Amino acid sequence: MKVSARNALSGKIVDLKKGTTTSHVVIDVNGMKVTASITNEAVEDLGLKVGGEATAIIKSSDVIIAVA
Amino acid sequence: MKVSARNALSGKIVDLKKGTTTSHVVIDVNGMKVTASITNEAVEDLGLKVGGEATAIIKSSDVIIAVA
Amino acid sequence: MKVSARNALSGKIVDLKKGTTTSHVVIDVNGMKVTASITNEAVEDLGLKVGGEATAIIKSSDVIIAVA
Amino acid sequence: MKVSARNALSGKIVDLKKGTTTSHVVIDVNGMKVTASITNEAVEDLGLKVGGEATAIIKSSDVIIAVA
Amino acid sequence: MKVSARNALSGKIVDLKKGTTTSHVVIDVNGMKVTASITNEAVEDLGLKVGGEATAIIKSSDVIIAVA
Amino acid sequence: MKVSARNALSGKIVDLKKGTTTSHVVIDVNGMKVTASITNEAVEDLGLKVGGEATAIIKSSDVIIAVA
Repeated sequence: MKVSARNALSGKIVDLKKGTTTSHVVIDVNGMKVTASITNEAVEDLGLKVGGEATAIIKSSDVIIAVA
Repeated sequence: MKVSARNALSGKIVDLKKGTTTSHVVIDVNGMKVTASITNEAVEDLGLKVGGEATAIIKSSDVIIAVA
Repeated sequence: MKVSARNALSGKIVDLKKGTTTSHVVIDVNGMKVTASITNEAVEDLGLKVGGEATAIIKSSDVIIAVA
Repeated sequence: MKVSARNALSGKIVDLKKGTTTSHVVIDVNGMKVTASITNEAVEDLGLKVGGEATAIIKSSDVIIAVA
Repeated sequence: MKVSARNALSGKIVDLKKGTTTSHVVIDVNGMKVTASITNEAVEDLGLKVGGEATAIIKSSDVIIAVA
Repeated sequence: MKVSARNALSGKIVDLKKGTTTSHVVIDVNGMKVTASITNEAVEDLGLKVGGEATAIIKSSDVIIAVA
């Protein structure tokens, strides 16, 4: 599968916190932390767990640019 | 200024393409390319140009997780 | 590849309009039209064209519910 | 009321799961499941319940395209 | 129609700039400017023009909080 | 710090509700309520509390336009 979203950052899951409906997944991408807020259902469906490989996919229109 | 968005990826602007209303900005973050689709007005307001420093800010709820 | 996004609607591309930086892709999903606004770069990278098969992927946090 | 969002998928609510602050609503749209992650406050305000009619509204810029 | 999105800011359209596929609409909400990036198709479908009344609708999950 | 997001609405926090992973923050902006759904981690990191000053930042591509 190929996706239109321009950003794909791969790494290892270093943290996973489940809420009642929403989970937070943290991926370590070359030393940078990337956090995703996804449904608990997705966590189970994808079998996510700390130590596993995962990719953060982000649409360009969801990226804000900041300058100092 | 501090923002609630959990993801901030800093680097150098390596590409900048202006459309009629929307621009695409590509930042090199430690060798990874991150693309943002923003308004032309923002490009001018922030004085973005190739070679400049910039940070990509992404809200956790906009991050999708993929596994192989 | 498996994604955390809970919504995947598959169909055939029935319209594709390119702007200077942003394209609009319309998929016919069982008679319903689904429109996506994506980068021109993605259109080329995925080789999208009218008549081709494609899937619209949507994160649950991007879905608004309306009632009459 | 008319909205700029190009995608409106109508159906019946088939599942509704409340978390502490965030609810997941699943609509059956012609046999396809569409999941929305919305605030509990919205669920109460709109009087959503399983069996009720509802429409999923999605902005084109939130739709990702995937190809096999 | 009632929507789950928690934010609705009403005002008058004070600027409207059309691109090749994407338009920018600026609403004056009690003296504050709110900018929306929407499809040209939506501009035509809703008959938007400078001076007209319009409401900006924003999902809570798309709002970032910043502090000084 | 300057951001590309075109919308910044400043006010006072009038409500803050914490869930297991996700919090809802309500800002009063000149009498209008603006709700943000953010991570609990962000609430702690920014030290948000009722009565404090805060700014809601919203990307133009996340704004939907509605007309009566």
